[in-house]
Amino acid sequence: MNEVAKSVDALYAVDRAAQALGIAVIDAAPGRVRASMTVRPDMLNGHDICHGGFLFTFADTAFAYACNSHGVAMVAAGASIEFMAPAHLGERLIATASETSRNDRHGIYDVVVANDLGEARAHFRGRCARLRTSPAVKNPLL
Amino acid sequence: MNEVAKSVDALYAVDRAAQALGIAVIDAAPGRVRASMTVRPDMLNGHDICHGGFLFTFADTAFAYACNSHGVAMVAAGASIEFMAPAHLGERLIATASETSRNDRHGIYDVVVANDLGEARAHFRGRCARLRTSPAVKNPLL
Amino acid sequence: MNEVAKSVDALYAVDRAAQALGIAVIDAAPGRVRASMTVRPDMLNGHDICHGGFLFTFADTAFAYACNSHGVAMVAAGASIEFMAPAHLGERLIATASETSRNDRHGIYDVVVANDLGEARAHFRGRCARLRTSPAVKNPLL
Amino acid sequence: MNEVAKSVDALYAVDRAAQALGIAVIDAAPGRVRASMTVRPDMLNGHDICHGGFLFTFADTAFAYACNSHGVAMVAAGASIEFMAPAHLGERLIATASETSRNDRHGIYDVVVANDLGEARAHFRGRCARLRTSPAVKNPLL
Repeated sequence: MNEVAKSVDALYAVDRAAQALGIAVIDAAPGRVRASMTVRPDMLNGHDICHGGFLFTFADTAFAYACNSHGVAMVAAGASIEFMAPAHLGERLIATASETSRNDRHGIYDVVVANDLGEARAHFRGRCARLRTSPAVKNPLL
Repeated sequence: MNEVAKSVDALYAVDRAAQALGIAVIDAAPGRVRASMTVRPDMLNGHDICHGGFLFTFADTAFAYACNSHGVAMVAAGASIEFMAPAHLGERLIATASETSRNDRHGIYDVVVANDLGEARAHFRGRCARLRTSPAVKNPLL
Repeated sequence: MNEVAKSVDALYAVDRAAQALGIAVIDAAPGRVRASMTVRPDMLNGHDICHGGFLFTFADTAFAYACNSHGVAMVAAGASIEFMAPAHLGERLIATASETSRNDRHGIYDVVVANDLGEARAHFRGRCARLRTSPAVKNPLL
Repeated sequence: MNEVAKSVDALYAVDRAAQALGIAVIDAAPGRVRASMTVRPDMLNGHDICHGGFLFTFADTAFAYACNSHGVAMVAAGASIEFMAPAHLGERLIATASETSRNDRHGIYDVVVANDLGEARAHFRGRCARLRTSPAVKNPLL
């Protein structure tokens, strides 16, 4: 297993949220991560489609692993998402995160969430900033 | 109970995702909804802070109820979020959604997620579009 | 003239871009600025409506003055804009910038661009960060 | 000259805003457009760097041509921009717009604004929607 995969595995091991959602990492390279998630009944909203929040959380997870793949701790500062089409119960989704821009202090990552047929469900763009202090400190972002 | 509260209650009753996250509606008025959610262990990421995806999902839920509070079915088209400060285990969060703009076909809603002390955790802006077809149809967004 | 107005006037005096676009400051208070701009022929695009870029620039200018109104130099880190309706030749627009969030290092400001009748043309949300170095230095943002 | 180039040329011919800013189209293919713009004195803000509004307008122009390159009239519905580094007086900038997603009614386009050395100045993401009515009608977006 390469260094990047090890680093992503270490993040995943302590990421209870990702585990609870059934998110799995497919592969990881510097600045690039693919993950999978299947739409479950408890992810549906009142329209019987996957709650946009779970599509976001899924994309955000792939983004987090991609922006931390270089061995420097980064945290999300913000993100935007465009919902392209609803995801349905049982649909297996793939999130592909790639690096659009990165320097020592900031990064921009784009994530496409698509189904097995490659049909886009959402486009996500995340911005991250270098973690300034220990996570134990109250407001690492500020 | 007024019409708006009834309409939001009806949405909540079938929103398994919101229920599973322990989100509760505090009050609702036309274009305005307040909801609460407490950060649970399964919402934490590897930094031991609330996964940004759950802050988004929480805000997105308040947004969905607010934009559907007028009795016309709207779906989220996209959203952006800025993370202001981490939310910690056990912290009770309040999401306040308000209407920034609305016409027959589109709307913009802003949601502030803050803790009990009023300290902002995230600022969310959602865009919605009128549902064009029955939710049973495959791609209502397109 | 109060301190805020003086500070905004000083910014405006060296802001050739704002001057060239005919932008004028109407009033300014801490975290809040109103400005005006009239749509000129050289602001029209091929659809004969105001190029979205000028609506953005106008909103961005009000945002810049509002986020610098506290006497601490801030620069724009990013922004998003939603176009609500076209602005036409000769239309007088008002941009109202208000402070959504601010701390020592970051801020979020919302700007509404509307015409004289209060009809929204665009909603803008800007993020700013404290200027880390002298503006003479090559990359103050990085 | 191919069909796409002709279509972009036709847009440019009536785009007074783009012409006034000295924007020039370098090349155009379906869903992809490259344009250039040089930072002029009247584009500088009070920090003596290019006003973010002009970087936005430049990116927005490349986006507009790219999303109209298929021969179907599209208008911008919204956009976001991240400012990476300041652009200085005399700097020649290249905007490269590419198609991230497109269907009959909507599209997402990403634009990178960089200098001649390929150093990013801004990352832009635009959303467009099909023009519903004649541009002569008052509110084509609504």
